[in-house]
Amino acid sequence: MTAPMPHVVIVGGGFAGLWATRALASAPVRITLLDRGNHHLFQPLLYQVATAGLSAPDIAAPLRHILRGQKNVEVRMATVARIDAAGKRVELEDGSAIAFDFLLLASGATHAYFGNDHWAAHAPGLKTLDDALDLRRKLLLAFERAEAADDPAEREAWLSFAVVGGGPTGVELAGTLAEIARHTLKDEFRNIDPAQARVRLVEAGPRVLSSFPEDLSEKARRQLEKLGVEVATGTPVADITAEGYRLGETFVPAKTVVWAAGVAASPLGRTLGVELDRAGRVPVLPDLTVPGHPDLFVAGDLASLQQDGKPVPGVAPAAKQMGRHVAQSIRARLSGRTTTPFVYRDYGNLATIGRMAAVVDFGRLKLSGLLAWWFWLTAHVFFLIGFRNRLVVLLNWFWAYWSYQRAARIILGDDDRSDTK
Amino acid sequence: MTAPMPHVVIVGGGFAGLWATRALASAPVRITLLDRGNHHLFQPLLYQVATAGLSAPDIAAPLRHILRGQKNVEVRMATVARIDAAGKRVELEDGSAIAFDFLLLASGATHAYFGNDHWAAHAPGLKTLDDALDLRRKLLLAFERAEAADDPAEREAWLSFAVVGGGPTGVELAGTLAEIARHTLKDEFRNIDPAQARVRLVEAGPRVLSSFPEDLSEKARRQLEKLGVEVATGTPVADITAEGYRLGETFVPAKTVVWAAGVAASPLGRTLGVELDRAGRVPVLPDLTVPGHPDLFVAGDLASLQQDGKPVPGVAPAAKQMGRHVAQSIRARLSGRTTTPFVYRDYGNLATIGRMAAVVDFGRLKLSGLLAWWFWLTAHVFFLIGFRNRLVVLLNWFWAYWSYQRAARIILGDDDRSDTK
Repeated sequence: MTAPMPHVVIVGGGFAGLWATRALASAPVRITLLDRGNHHLFQPLLYQVATAGLSAPDIAAPLRHILRGQKNVEVRMATVARIDAAGKRVELEDGSAIAFDFLLLASGATHAYFGNDHWAAHAPGLKTLDDALDLRRKLLLAFERAEAADDPAEREAWLSFAVVGGGPTGVELAGTLAEIARHTLKDEFRNIDPAQARVRLVEAGPRVLSSFPEDLSEKARRQLEKLGVEVATGTPVADITAEGYRLGETFVPAKTVVWAAGVAASPLGRTLGVELDRAGRVPVLPDLTVPGHPDLFVAGDLASLQQDGKPVPGVAPAAKQMGRHVAQSIRARLSGRTTTPFVYRDYGNLATIGRMAAVVDFGRLKLSGLLAWWFWLTAHVFFLIGFRNRLVVLLNWFWAYWSYQRAARIILGDDDRSDTK
Repeated sequence: MTAPMPHVVIVGGGFAGLWATRALASAPVRITLLDRGNHHLFQPLLYQVATAGLSAPDIAAPLRHILRGQKNVEVRMATVARIDAAGKRVELEDGSAIAFDFLLLASGATHAYFGNDHWAAHAPGLKTLDDALDLRRKLLLAFERAEAADDPAEREAWLSFAVVGGGPTGVELAGTLAEIARHTLKDEFRNIDPAQARVRLVEAGPRVLSSFPEDLSEKARRQLEKLGVEVATGTPVADITAEGYRLGETFVPAKTVVWAAGVAASPLGRTLGVELDRAGRVPVLPDLTVPGHPDLFVAGDLASLQQDGKPVPGVAPAAKQMGRHVAQSIRARLSGRTTTPFVYRDYGNLATIGRMAAVVDFGRLKLSGLLAWWFWLTAHVFFLIGFRNRLVVLLNWFWAYWSYQRAARIILGDDDRSDTK
């Protein structure tokens, strides 16, 4: 009689969870991969779904399908309620529980309003495909409402857009919104000129893309302004209502405000019973285990780790590298070897700004403008999961850039839904 | 001073409304096109969105975009509450009203449960993109639930699918569902074999595709059975619950029931103050006007018209032809000519069944199987609106038929939504 295979439970089918699962393909373990949804999401292109450039299925693939050939994995669509670290069990929302020998908690992050949760109703964020479709609906409806408005002040408010947060997502959203207003919707309205829409990007800190060197931040700002975005830095948003937002003492009317300012780690971290960092992330040891729980790993956006005096950033490449490292550590443990510390390899930093504009930072090599944009495009299409998706995404982009058109400008969902979101 | 241009209001951006709008491009009128949504929908491919073969934006295009070059049209996204035929006004749900000189009412049809509206919660129908996405979610979740079920009877119930109604939509849905179960999901589950799923097609009448000649109905039935569909004809469904449906005295467990059995005309017909036919459609005169209202036209699925002793069918080609004819009549009226009666030209009847199977009836020429399917594919891609859409749809189909995969297998929407639908 042989001993049963060790059971590895992986929570979250994002970059960290999926890359760990794949790296355990030939390991003598059985794996259960749990995710709330049925798909892996290519999050770096989520803003394209929100801005009607891509369809939801273009940037997502069913986890079952990706892993169909890996016989040691069972994929389960389930919501995890809490981790029982001492009992080595994952408790599901449906009341059942799954025992594990090793756990990888990779449930990521969600957007956060820093204690102003009531802003969520007026300034939706962007983390899931459902968020993106809700945002798409909100953006497209704003132009419809402006077209139908009789009152000039109301029309202007519907044509005022604000993106809160000058990180990569905020910059992408603001740049693309300006492109939609100035080019995509040209000639389509009779009572408004969409090009008159004002798109504002509001960043509390001194500059946009603060994770980039200062000169690239400055270039990004200039590229945004060229696209028609008004960039406001240095003042945090003090309030957000259905009618606009307040910067210091100034109220700015804007019917459409998008939140791209903050992320908070998944609440599952709180159920581990260990001390978290200020952003709710789980501080991990160099081998990505939780202190005091050598069988419990955390990777991706939920993990907090310092390296060379800097935090490992919450980006896709870091999550993939962590996921693969966790797989390696589990293999090491099973064969009696010691685990090695995780080393983050920073291959560079990319952010797109809009039509043919991006910034790229490879340390010594810094690019901006068209060349950076081509680089960004190639990298993103290359990394997008699934053969079909790459082709369709490429095709959509060629079409979008050639014609200024966006393929997915379809308003989905009925009014009742939009009113509650 | 010149007289103001006559105002044509068109309600509904489907085939009838859009084709009428386009045919009035050079007419001396101003046109307002009203639609609840922002897009024209290529309804013949809606079942492909429901069965995860295509994305919602693949088969829809924004009305504004289609009509951006036609300067005499204003597109408005608005919900019509009622028609004030005597006052020549369209009243909107927001309380405002639009006066017209000519009206085309082309608000189409919705699905109907023949007095059993409580079945809607258990057996959703398929008329809009939102319907299709809800249905997709329901179909994909059924396999997830089956995989998670511990109880064999429950598992079997989740793997039991029924489509009620043996018309073109029901046949398409049942055939595609069988294909998904037998081929698409192969190897993806660990606790169930999706190929064991039972797909039943229930038709109250004596045969499927009753609008086709009997021999083609019989061929369609055999093609369905070859794909794995169990076809039950001759008995109407007596009840539908969350657990299944009743045929006569027999209760058949099936957690997933889809309604493709009946359509009813848009309720706006009722506000005209004229007598409607049994299906709620508006009987029109040969020139497609409403009796007693020479400036009020009805076209598409909402119009009831007999020709050569047979009703003009509720299909896309008839709607397009009617739309164009209404435009012609309005032009005639404006230049003082008399209107001509509408003549429906029946170019044939197509229905697809599933993977490489279809039936085609051109009167003398009847086709079935692979050849009919190629014919169907060509016709549908050709008629699909928008250059990009055609390319993307073709690409998705090549991929789907080469690999048995379906590109849009992404579950959207959270649990709360699905529970209320």
